[in-house]
Amino acid sequence: MPSANPADDTAAGGESLDILALLERGRTMSTPVLRAAVDRLAPPMDTVAAYHFGWIDAEGQPSAGDGGKAVRPALALLSAEVAGAAPEVGVPGAVAVELVHNFSLLHDDLMDGDEQRRHRDTVWKVHGPAQAILVGDALFALANEVLLELGTVEAGRATRRLTTASRKLIDGQAQDISYEHRERVTVEECLEMEGNKTGALLACAVSIGAVLGGADDKTADTLEAYGYHLGLAFQAVDDLLGIWGDPVSTGKQTWSDLRQRKKSLPVVAALAAGGPASQRLGELLAADAKSNDFDSFSEAEFATRAALIEEAGGREWTSQEARRQHAVAIEALSGVDMPEQVRTQLVALADFVVVRKR
Amino acid sequence: MPSANPADDTAAGGESLDILALLERGRTMSTPVLRAAVDRLAPPMDTVAAYHFGWIDAEGQPSAGDGGKAVRPALALLSAEVAGAAPEVGVPGAVAVELVHNFSLLHDDLMDGDEQRRHRDTVWKVHGPAQAILVGDALFALANEVLLELGTVEAGRATRRLTTASRKLIDGQAQDISYEHRERVTVEECLEMEGNKTGALLACAVSIGAVLGGADDKTADTLEAYGYHLGLAFQAVDDLLGIWGDPVSTGKQTWSDLRQRKKSLPVVAALAAGGPASQRLGELLAADAKSNDFDSFSEAEFATRAALIEEAGGREWTSQEARRQHAVAIEALSGVDMPEQVRTQLVALADFVVVRKR
Repeated sequence: MPSANPADDTAAGGESLDILALLERGRTMSTPVLRAAVDRLAPPMDTVAAYHFGWIDAEGQPSAGDGGKAVRPALALLSAEVAGAAPEVGVPGAVAVELVHNFSLLHDDLMDGDEQRRHRDTVWKVHGPAQAILVGDALFALANEVLLELGTVEAGRATRRLTTASRKLIDGQAQDISYEHRERVTVEECLEMEGNKTGALLACAVSIGAVLGGADDKTADTLEAYGYHLGLAFQAVDDLLGIWGDPVSTGKQTWSDLRQRKKSLPVVAALAAGGPASQRLGELLAADAKSNDFDSFSEAEFATRAALIEEAGGREWTSQEARRQHAVAIEALSGVDMPEQVRTQLVALADFVVVRKR
Repeated sequence: MPSANPADDTAAGGESLDILALLERGRTMSTPVLRAAVDRLAPPMDTVAAYHFGWIDAEGQPSAGDGGKAVRPALALLSAEVAGAAPEVGVPGAVAVELVHNFSLLHDDLMDGDEQRRHRDTVWKVHGPAQAILVGDALFALANEVLLELGTVEAGRATRRLTTASRKLIDGQAQDISYEHRERVTVEECLEMEGNKTGALLACAVSIGAVLGGADDKTADTLEAYGYHLGLAFQAVDDLLGIWGDPVSTGKQTWSDLRQRKKSLPVVAALAAGGPASQRLGELLAADAKSNDFDSFSEAEFATRAALIEEAGGREWTSQEARRQHAVAIEALSGVDMPEQVRTQLVALADFVVVRKR
């Protein structure tokens, strides 16, 4: 379990030194292979993809951009070690999962009209919608290519799992879009959507290295249960950061998810809670949905909504939900034999996901 | 070789009865499996995809829409027979190729701003850009799923070939988009782009059934050579129909490719030819590129450009190129052992592709 007070065992960003090393290993081992894969793309797609990954800036100059937290590559490498294989065995899996993740970011940012990601303009803003579509497509194809060119039976099984996860990712985005046009979304619908959008690919990251390392389907399925619930814990924390996160850490605007009228967990939980704050919140959000002035709302207006969500219990419920999902994830791990050190690291990574600040 | 006068051996649409039966077999055997695959998509993606395939209209009512020529499914079934397998063995390959083809149509129509396809409004016009992106993504994922769930080594090999073809398809679209912004495109560049956009997936259609039926890589590669050149012949004819085709048959506007300023084969060949007509055409197209009135051009203005393309030899060159590619395709077939009846049908299909009117 994460400690009640993150300051007890973590650095300022919620990251202990062990976790930093684990994330760094994932990044260091997978990035060169990822870059080599992206370099295969025909111009100008290679440049657009390099911009998306933060390797170059909008003018094409090398950049030491923020490549994200790299939780998935770290998991894919640990996953190989679960099966008793070297972490290297998980690298094509780590790269394939990152490619699918970034394919979905490119397309989702365009569909959602999001202008910023990782403190930078999104690809469609810089290079136009066509390039965002095209490079997303190319990364998706490349993900399968990186796995299938291994030419092994295990690679075929890994690709099948990645394809299943990709379909769920797309289902989740479809749900996310359809929920935007609905006045009410239940907590269950929100959890299902987040399970598809975040849980499925994290689950795949945790099974893909093991499958490449020869693990059987039962082991892979159990690892996916850990990853799925870890993904839901991850997303619950993301939803908290999307409203109450520090813009300096998250790289997003203040009240980011409220500005986008996202029906995230804290919002749907607050609306479902009942009571005066819940009711007042419901009235405000219903009026917001019809408002023409929404885009010129002041900080104070978003602060009012955030306070109502908190008062109705949406913040506390989501925080508890992160811990519930964390506990289910840890519990799933007991169903798989693995080296004790690998288990410790998977537990530590789950703890990190719940206490992180970005 | 196709006859000099298509009327000699073909029906009004350039289709002999044998070819009609072959195309019908591909359609009849693959469509139920394709529909079952599309039915797996979560709402509203299933409905949007059904609209795209012409199974329902914009109001959701059943429709007997035009599903296209279905050359690819016919080829995938013949492909299985090349390997001595039953045509049924090629069905998952036919479905996967159709899914990839339609994924690319959905995304390309959006990127290119094309409002009409197969006599109907395109998906992004009816259901919006986000659905066109999302459903395209879903069809692409589904293509891999349909193959990989077979769970065989052959399915893994088939998926790898499909992935390679998909990447080329995306490369071709990237080239197509970049050429739009350039004043001059060489004939070689145009052929490379068309090889990627059309040749690669047709090549895959011709190898995928054989691979699923157990053919070795050498056989599959040779079949792909036939398919690739068949694709180039197909595209050369498409480029002719895109300028001089009968709108009633093609379902496109008159001078369709000229209206879209497409640098298709007849155009680039005419520009490369030299001479007065070629030069005059170059001046006109250069002026068109800067014109603000292009969208209100009259029929006569497009007719002038078409006449110059023809006078400069672009029409004749493209027609000959279709025959050259046809001949190379047929020649490639001699490198593969196969039942004589299958060979006859592959030859007949190649003949059809060159004489078709739509």
